[in-house]
Amino acid sequence: MYLGIDIGGTTTKLGVADAGGTLIQEASFRTSAYANAHQFLEALDGEIIRMVSLLDHHIQGIGLGAPSANFRTGAIENAANLGWKGKLDIKKHLEKSTGCRVMVTNDANLPAIGEMTYGGARGMQNFITVSLGTGLGSGLVCNGKLVGGHHGMAGELGHTCAVAGGRNCGCGRKGCLETYVSATGLKRTVLEALAHDLEYYSLLREFSFEEMTAEHIHEAALDGDRIAKEAFDRTGSMLGRQLADLVCITDPEAIFLVGGLAKAGDLLFTPTKQALQQYMLSNFESDLEIKSSSLPLDKLSLLGAIGLVSSNRSSKVASSNYNLIPY
Amino acid sequence: MYLGIDIGGTTTKLGVADAGGTLIQEASFRTSAYANAHQFLEALDGEIIRMVSLLDHHIQGIGLGAPSANFRTGAIENAANLGWKGKLDIKKHLEKSTGCRVMVTNDANLPAIGEMTYGGARGMQNFITVSLGTGLGSGLVCNGKLVGGHHGMAGELGHTCAVAGGRNCGCGRKGCLETYVSATGLKRTVLEALAHDLEYYSLLREFSFEEMTAEHIHEAALDGDRIAKEAFDRTGSMLGRQLADLVCITDPEAIFLVGGLAKAGDLLFTPTKQALQQYMLSNFESDLEIKSSSLPLDKLSLLGAIGLVSSNRSSKVASSNYNLIPY
Repeated sequence: MYLGIDIGGTTTKLGVADAGGTLIQEASFRTSAYANAHQFLEALDGEIIRMVSLLDHHIQGIGLGAPSANFRTGAIENAANLGWKGKLDIKKHLEKSTGCRVMVTNDANLPAIGEMTYGGARGMQNFITVSLGTGLGSGLVCNGKLVGGHHGMAGELGHTCAVAGGRNCGCGRKGCLETYVSATGLKRTVLEALAHDLEYYSLLREFSFEEMTAEHIHEAALDGDRIAKEAFDRTGSMLGRQLADLVCITDPEAIFLVGGLAKAGDLLFTPTKQALQQYMLSNFESDLEIKSSSLPLDKLSLLGAIGLVSSNRSSKVASSNYNLIPY
Repeated sequence: MYLGIDIGGTTTKLGVADAGGTLIQEASFRTSAYANAHQFLEALDGEIIRMVSLLDHHIQGIGLGAPSANFRTGAIENAANLGWKGKLDIKKHLEKSTGCRVMVTNDANLPAIGEMTYGGARGMQNFITVSLGTGLGSGLVCNGKLVGGHHGMAGELGHTCAVAGGRNCGCGRKGCLETYVSATGLKRTVLEALAHDLEYYSLLREFSFEEMTAEHIHEAALDGDRIAKEAFDRTGSMLGRQLADLVCITDPEAIFLVGGLAKAGDLLFTPTKQALQQYMLSNFESDLEIKSSSLPLDKLSLLGAIGLVSSNRSSKVASSNYNLIPY
């Protein structure tokens, strides 16, 4: 049995699964309920003890993903969307509190590890996952291995430039892809359209920016709302154009679109595929697949955390698929 | 001793070197002098026999790079800038004609292999080479291995979009990076500037487009020609902006600028570094290096071809650095 932990800005999810990825226990608590790292770790330890006490099996290892977590150091370093600052050496802490081996990675890598271990990317040597949530994260697998990069920060597709001089991004620059292609980006696109076109009565005029969610826009689009549909078209079109460049660079076998926004299905996938086809270098056109996940989207990252540790059983981690520091 | 062969659209270079990369013999002939693949192979075989007959040593293997060569099949497939079409199984041919093991790769990968085996990238796990010649090629090394991609076509940085709806590219699309950032792109930029600004008397007004070379523009810039200098500024600026996105995706330790245009030195490197600094996500700013090659630029690809085979001595090629088909 393996324990996976997926720490997000809002929610921390835990799950126990066998090596085949079958979840036998799950739990979650609000990350944002804890004002400092100490209180958060206490809550996490408590939840782990509670889960493990219900098990008949030993835990053979813990896999953990968190924002700004560094696989080289095992620490969470100045995460922008966690309630505490500074460096939290979560690997060391959990190894001490649980006695288990602990493997840590950046949460952006979890969907790729999940797909690779239990999902549609099993057996693929070259693929990409694009996670569309509040922001846009991505995971690259080349030659059968996750691309971590020199600092463990590779895969920041969300911060490549989609529109020169475009929308303000939280990173301090302008026009980053995630300012257009993400749940937040979709809302911004809707607001621009509502401002631009006063003639058309959109269902989305009733929502404030704070109230509005990607689900509202999804529902409105299904109800035939033109502004909602056009917002999805624009989002997919920008994603497809940017993916055309990424395909030139990495030549993947498949691209998986995951995360909450991927639940919109064809509303997002169709314009993405169209733009990709339109902008892609013709050499690559033949067989590239844009795929949805075969795993439940809201458990994909948790399964990635479990896959991280279940696929790295030996101590020879240098030769494993995930380039992680050995225990 | 190893034999390297670097087949280019204009010239085919051959070299014999020891495993340390010291060239003891070199030769070259005009690729474009041969109208079909059969005549070209005859010339190549003749040159190999001539070189080898002068040696006191055995050749332990042949490394070869060519445009549109596929490392999986060992064949050159429909190369746009070679004088013959169709599929040429050059690996099979040379294995038969020489009795040596032969390793084949795409010529775009040669500079990366050269840097990795004999140059400034020795020991680096994550780096990029950008080759600026008639076009723009690139080689990506992630996790210590060349990124080949699903079809062996990764690294087409030259065909990522630099300007939406921009200059016509030979690939049939518009605005590709190599239409701006390459020797040809530099000439196009000069021509635009000459057309735009009739007031300034540029030294470059004396050259037709066909006559003009990157060296002329380089010399003019050194002589203080404003249009030449601004053309280099614009070229470097576009390169730096595009590299900022590539850094987001792959998080390299260093980027090597190689190829003929890199001989322009600071004229190109300074605006490239400035734009990279300006557009790069701040997380990556600290220690990324933009480097020139420590190897002679006009022999880098040939050394890459030698490195390709000298670093793959065992038959266990699957675990080698270069993902090549075993002999």
